[in-house]
Amino acid sequence: MNPLDNIRIVLVGTLYSGNVGSCCRAMANMGISKLRLAAPDIQDPDFREAVKLAVHATDILDARETFTTFEEAVADCVAVAGTTARGGLYRQHVKTPRETAPELLELAAQGPVAIVFGREDKGLLNEEVAQCTHLVRIPVAEGYTSINLSQAVMITAYELFAASGVYVPPHEKAPLAPQGQKEQMYAQWRDMLQTIGFMDDKQSDHMMQGIHRVFSRGVRTRDDAAIMLGVARQARWAAANLPAAPRES
Amino acid sequence: MNPLDNIRIVLVGTLYSGNVGSCCRAMANMGISKLRLAAPDIQDPDFREAVKLAVHATDILDARETFTTFEEAVADCVAVAGTTARGGLYRQHVKTPRETAPELLELAAQGPVAIVFGREDKGLLNEEVAQCTHLVRIPVAEGYTSINLSQAVMITAYELFAASGVYVPPHEKAPLAPQGQKEQMYAQWRDMLQTIGFMDDKQSDHMMQGIHRVFSRGVRTRDDAAIMLGVARQARWAAANLPAAPRES
Repeated sequence: MNPLDNIRIVLVGTLYSGNVGSCCRAMANMGISKLRLAAPDIQDPDFREAVKLAVHATDILDARETFTTFEEAVADCVAVAGTTARGGLYRQHVKTPRETAPELLELAAQGPVAIVFGREDKGLLNEEVAQCTHLVRIPVAEGYTSINLSQAVMITAYELFAASGVYVPPHEKAPLAPQGQKEQMYAQWRDMLQTIGFMDDKQSDHMMQGIHRVFSRGVRTRDDAAIMLGVARQARWAAANLPAAPRES
Repeated sequence: MNPLDNIRIVLVGTLYSGNVGSCCRAMANMGISKLRLAAPDIQDPDFREAVKLAVHATDILDARETFTTFEEAVADCVAVAGTTARGGLYRQHVKTPRETAPELLELAAQGPVAIVFGREDKGLLNEEVAQCTHLVRIPVAEGYTSINLSQAVMITAYELFAASGVYVPPHEKAPLAPQGQKEQMYAQWRDMLQTIGFMDDKQSDHMMQGIHRVFSRGVRTRDDAAIMLGVARQARWAAANLPAAPRES
């Protein structure tokens, strides 16, 4: 099974419906679909703002589970990771989401794992933090540590998604150019640059070092080498075959 | 200098003022302060929504620079990293923010580096993508690839911030318990568990294996060991000294 299916995003005492919607969208982006609200304090009975901001992730919003207390919301979870922006008592063994993600996924392979986010204004209470098996703090710049709720959900979900290995980063499909093809390209360029009068025979070795420097960074794939070889061929042909333009006066 | 100071977050053709505000807040969280708008298409002349959602990051909002075109907004930048959710032509050499961050920071140590984000509805145009020196795609789950603009800014800024080394993850300050202290603790527990009648002499070695298993995971620091040693001492004292409670009937 995919351990992300065992992740429960638990929002505690959330005040703003819109934040719940934004959280749903962030969760959908990161392949997490189970949302729980614990003791929500939302003054928007129809969750209108939530529906609006969830965009196409309303399935997550509709499937949310609501609990009266924090304790009930995490009762079936084999691990409870609380997120906190503050330091202090009970919060000293806090780690970053990146450090914690692999362990949380291992645990999620065995049972439900709660990732808990506190109130917009005051986060998790000390008595809630004390019930967490793990504590997570998102790295932030000094002087501006207050993260929007859905942004905190996004970063934590992103680290879990990244650690899950579900996503395979895209890689250039084009095969890399072998050295022989590059040498052909350089030979064509040397000829062409002499033909068009960019350099004479004596300057060639020196000038070609500059060309090598640029192409060694820029020409990676067979396609790259083929394009640049074609440019040289065509320039040589044009210099020999196109009628000279009238000189500018 | 801090290379994050040379990062320019460039929003192209942005439609919603609120998103600009949320971007400012995310930037502040991640230690990036220079915002540019290229050809904004915002129907909120006073940026009211932006001010509201920037929360305490209005200094970034107020200091924003606005340009008529994409080209002008990135003209002074030594690297231009475009973010794109789509694949296709011109977009094959895309990398993840995590892969790209170290190189972008190296470049930012030498000059301004633009991180470019397209329109909420259609992202960057092909002609804009073609002008980028780097392409970045945030890893997302298949089937829900549309990321909110400020969330995309947050993840990209977060990866730059994490790679910058500005943030030092918190680590437990309490010194780890040396083995000798742990042995004292286990000795106290053995005595105590016999005293309270939890195990007799014959069972002790077996039972202590269970205690070792639990404490080997749970007792890490000197403080941890001191607490558990104190528990054992107190339980032994209580068993010997407290008056017996009346039996429940």
